[in-house]
Amino acid sequence: MATHTIQFLPYETSIQVQDGDTVIRAALEAGVHVNASCGGEGVCGKCRVLIEEGTVESGISEKLSEADREKGYRLACRAIVKSDLVVRIPVESTIDTSVLKLQAAPRRTAHISEFDFDELKEKGLFDAPVEKKYLQLPAPTAQDNLPDITRLISYLKLKHDEHRLEVDLSVIRKIPEVIRQDDFKVTTTLVRPVRKVGKTRLINVQPGDTTRQNYAIAMDIGTTTIYGQLIDLITGEVLAEHGEFNGQISYGEDVISRIVFAEKPGGLEKINAVVIETINKILKKIVKESGVEPEDIATITLAGNTTMTQLMLAVNPRSIRRAPYVPAATLYPPIKAADLGMDLVGHVTALVYPAVSSYVGGDIVAGVMGSGIYRSEALTLYLDVGTNAEIVIGNKEWLACAACSAGPAFEGGGLKFGMRAAKGAIEDFSMDPVTLEPMILTIGNVRAKGICGSGLIIMTAVMFEMGIINNLGKFDRDLDTPRIREDNGVFEYVLAWKDETQIDRDVTLTEIDIENLIRAKGAIYSGCMTLLTEVGMGISDIEHIILAGGFGSYVDLEKAITIGLLPEIDPHKVTFIGNGSLMGARMSSLTNRIRQDVAEVTKKMTNFELSDTPSYMDNYVAALFLPHTDMNQFPRLKSRLEARNKLKLKIED
Amino acid sequence: MATHTIQFLPYETSIQVQDGDTVIRAALEAGVHVNASCGGEGVCGKCRVLIEEGTVESGISEKLSEADREKGYRLACRAIVKSDLVVRIPVESTIDTSVLKLQAAPRRTAHISEFDFDELKEKGLFDAPVEKKYLQLPAPTAQDNLPDITRLISYLKLKHDEHRLEVDLSVIRKIPEVIRQDDFKVTTTLVRPVRKVGKTRLINVQPGDTTRQNYAIAMDIGTTTIYGQLIDLITGEVLAEHGEFNGQISYGEDVISRIVFAEKPGGLEKINAVVIETINKILKKIVKESGVEPEDIATITLAGNTTMTQLMLAVNPRSIRRAPYVPAATLYPPIKAADLGMDLVGHVTALVYPAVSSYVGGDIVAGVMGSGIYRSEALTLYLDVGTNAEIVIGNKEWLACAACSAGPAFEGGGLKFGMRAAKGAIEDFSMDPVTLEPMILTIGNVRAKGICGSGLIIMTAVMFEMGIINNLGKFDRDLDTPRIREDNGVFEYVLAWKDETQIDRDVTLTEIDIENLIRAKGAIYSGCMTLLTEVGMGISDIEHIILAGGFGSYVDLEKAITIGLLPEIDPHKVTFIGNGSLMGARMSSLTNRIRQDVAEVTKKMTNFELSDTPSYMDNYVAALFLPHTDMNQFPRLKSRLEARNKLKLKIED
Repeated sequence: MATHTIQFLPYETSIQVQDGDTVIRAALEAGVHVNASCGGEGVCGKCRVLIEEGTVESGISEKLSEADREKGYRLACRAIVKSDLVVRIPVESTIDTSVLKLQAAPRRTAHISEFDFDELKEKGLFDAPVEKKYLQLPAPTAQDNLPDITRLISYLKLKHDEHRLEVDLSVIRKIPEVIRQDDFKVTTTLVRPVRKVGKTRLINVQPGDTTRQNYAIAMDIGTTTIYGQLIDLITGEVLAEHGEFNGQISYGEDVISRIVFAEKPGGLEKINAVVIETINKILKKIVKESGVEPEDIATITLAGNTTMTQLMLAVNPRSIRRAPYVPAATLYPPIKAADLGMDLVGHVTALVYPAVSSYVGGDIVAGVMGSGIYRSEALTLYLDVGTNAEIVIGNKEWLACAACSAGPAFEGGGLKFGMRAAKGAIEDFSMDPVTLEPMILTIGNVRAKGICGSGLIIMTAVMFEMGIINNLGKFDRDLDTPRIREDNGVFEYVLAWKDETQIDRDVTLTEIDIENLIRAKGAIYSGCMTLLTEVGMGISDIEHIILAGGFGSYVDLEKAITIGLLPEIDPHKVTFIGNGSLMGARMSSLTNRIRQDVAEVTKKMTNFELSDTPSYMDNYVAALFLPHTDMNQFPRLKSRLEARNKLKLKIED
Repeated sequence: MATHTIQFLPYETSIQVQDGDTVIRAALEAGVHVNASCGGEGVCGKCRVLIEEGTVESGISEKLSEADREKGYRLACRAIVKSDLVVRIPVESTIDTSVLKLQAAPRRTAHISEFDFDELKEKGLFDAPVEKKYLQLPAPTAQDNLPDITRLISYLKLKHDEHRLEVDLSVIRKIPEVIRQDDFKVTTTLVRPVRKVGKTRLINVQPGDTTRQNYAIAMDIGTTTIYGQLIDLITGEVLAEHGEFNGQISYGEDVISRIVFAEKPGGLEKINAVVIETINKILKKIVKESGVEPEDIATITLAGNTTMTQLMLAVNPRSIRRAPYVPAATLYPPIKAADLGMDLVGHVTALVYPAVSSYVGGDIVAGVMGSGIYRSEALTLYLDVGTNAEIVIGNKEWLACAACSAGPAFEGGGLKFGMRAAKGAIEDFSMDPVTLEPMILTIGNVRAKGICGSGLIIMTAVMFEMGIINNLGKFDRDLDTPRIREDNGVFEYVLAWKDETQIDRDVTLTEIDIENLIRAKGAIYSGCMTLLTEVGMGISDIEHIILAGGFGSYVDLEKAITIGLLPEIDPHKVTFIGNGSLMGARMSSLTNRIRQDVAEVTKKMTNFELSDTPSYMDNYVAALFLPHTDMNQFPRLKSRLEARNKLKLKIED
């Protein structure tokens, strides 16, 4: 797709965007403020910009006067980029253009790291877990009347140098018929041992040559959502992918309430049946969509947190939620998928990702494997943020991990106008440094309904950097704007007025919301600090950050640093891997090397129970500021704030 | 029990018998003839003997005159030995006592070899396949919150030096509750790998100390009968034992008709379900009888012929009955017994005895293991005779095996008055050398109904040695006795007249019956010969014979040699092991050494398809004589016959 360069005037900023993006998103990405309060729906008419050069589509509205239209004004939220542009932002409120230097940093999201099968091979990490071998066998005679299986095995040895085979009963049951079905031409499915010392398992035999049909399934068993992928083991491609809400949601949103339910009489059986039902729904869908023969699927690899794993395996999770938080197991044997109730052919083996502890589960271990942190030279922070945040710090030498409860703020929970990242959620924000008017963009470009997690981070960061809120998250009581007001004793900022929203109420950001965010980011940051302290290192030693989870892809990295959620690092050194759990499951499906390494890796992953680690509470209290009590941990931000203060003083002079 | 010595006059024979035996059985065992035609029921009155010294109980009948009773005559078939005796046999028919030397050899049955657990241990063959270990674990704390399984495993390592453990999912499912049930006191069940390189499987965990409760099941899956034993793995004792007819009998008596049924649509499922039903009946019975907790049973070892094994495992047996007679497999992986439909706890592993070929099955391999032939220095013949006869020849260096169809003669089938070895079957026989009057004894000491296999062998041998039949099995046409007659062109000998039988007909032995026997014994003997020829040895090289199967315990060894069923060997060198298949299954339950050895042994067992071995037909034809065309293979018999002929000539002079 074509890219275009947009220069914003009077700012000295330009940005590359995709053909078809809106001008307002381009501005936001560039850190250029344009007043806008309807979320991008085109109804407030505030985002007038002058297209000085180049072509845009649309952007004309009744909110623009005939004269303005003719001059070249367009609504930025509706104007679609079709060429290189020069766009002038009307900066009506500014006295001095030097105030423009107060603009926010351009939006920086993490580099998205895609999983690459060829790279895996190049790095010597490929070690086929399942292979198919074709054989043309001689027919038995009186002089050569070996048992069918012995014939097969001896020719696997002779033609394919296969040794130390273990045969499933199901293969013995099939072989007399299958071997004679296509004149002693057969394809065998061989499952390799994880370790070389083990035996290869002969799990299937099919008439004719089916060597090109060789598939596996990877699945992430999330507390909220379960994702499955059907993978071609020859190309590494994902042939079909599907996600469904975990059916257990009706028994509670979080792991604790699920455990409580499982403890009731018959509860474990029920809640286990429900998750298997969801898994089967996904299996049905991806098998159908890919058009793959179920018999050509050899393995299913599943990753989930410790509670999800125990519930999926019908293992009583009672002790997980009680001090000292003991899981039943962290390592599981290979299991027949059919024995778990999965609608897969009898020979399919289910491989369950091992966990580290009750709260650092197989999903995180899968992320560690999928992201490659365990092979990294650089000291890396792996962060998977959801309701719970899991933190892994380390490299190929050592790995320290911990889980902390971030609370629901990052998912838009617990806020006055909080919502999930769905249509109508304010996801992006900037502010005019002088008028304090907002620029809001919502998911779906519709009028605002509420605030989602990534929006909350951006708002807090922008307001903090502009000095609208202080380092405790409190609004400057001296500012003269109707948008900051006290409501029932709580200070708040009006993001959109009643008539600009979908909910017929003003949508606001309150000090309580900001407090929630500070506690959430404080928990995570202090978790990282604690791990580093325990291993005798400091936050500045971190060389690379990997973000995982649904939260990660949208987050404006500079803003996340500004509020003190992430340590200050070059945004280039932050990568986003999406669903790390699913990625790890997929990698384990594709190569035994990952499965060989995982046992070692889990042993290497030292778990810290933060609540039992004395330094955690000190670190936590220190992190309950924006960005932190110790500004020296954020030198870039510190000098930015200092420069801004000087500039501000100068302007005010 | 007390034993008594009985001296028979005018014979020069004495014998040791058990207190409570009948005088007539003692006579038969000693090779002393007493006329008797009612089978031992006491109604013919022919078996009058004079008790010259000592005490008998009973033996008085209306068939004895008052005078005779007072003189001390008793009916031998009713007289019970209570002390040492001197018994005179009235030899009314003899002209010269030298004829007495024509008497048959004393009855000699095989020494019964009992399985001995202590002997197994002494010989260094003990290697516990299942062990229970007790542990008192420390309770978890915040500082020590290992997963339950990890805690268990690390203490198994610490306290019992257990390494390389593999854990069943069922154990993980149970452990959170079990470990807390008796204050962290638990007993683990560990199943050892067959080979040292394998892993120990942790299959069960129980609260408290249950180390003394450790059991296994051994089973012989016979075509006709299935036997099960419940074994105490600590003492080696059989706590309960039960046999049931294989429910498949209603689908055919022999393996071929079972295969035919299994080939019909739904036939395999049906015939599989039926045998599993029989197995479950036996399991229920022996578990109940022994009072063992099902959870304390760890393994079930099953041995059966190749067809029975495939049907039990629901493996299509179609190719077994078609040239070139290919089984699906001869080696089976360990299988969960529950997956086979057996009513055993989920953790029980079913171990199936490997086979050699379609007609040398796991039952024979089990016999080879149970009898120890594979460890023997001496060249040994192992013979399991039923409808099919399986032959193994060899020692610890090599083993050759073959199966041959003996036909049903040894089980009393296909004879004019043939019957199974049940009440009323003539099982023992002798003949007055001059009058040619018979002495018959039946099972249960009742009037005759028919002839069973062991009876047939004895009759044929006695008549041959006395010259009543020639080496082709034909009656001497010149003998003057109403007992030998022609009926519808077939010569026969009347064993019991109509009024002495239960069936209101004369019970006879016909030349056709003898022909059947000659063919049956010829098949077996020539099978042995062929194996020996193929390995470059001769029949005289055999140093030891092991008999297995229901047939073996009753057979009079000298008689079996006389007809040429067994090679001529010192009867001391013949042992009977009973159900060799069950014995082997039991030994495999008790020690892994047998399971370690069995894979090697089956590889060592060279199978000969007799029908494809050219020398077999020649050997067979040569064996269709009594005892054989080559009398030099039976030197003892040869000189006995020569002596008898000389004596006979002398008497007749």
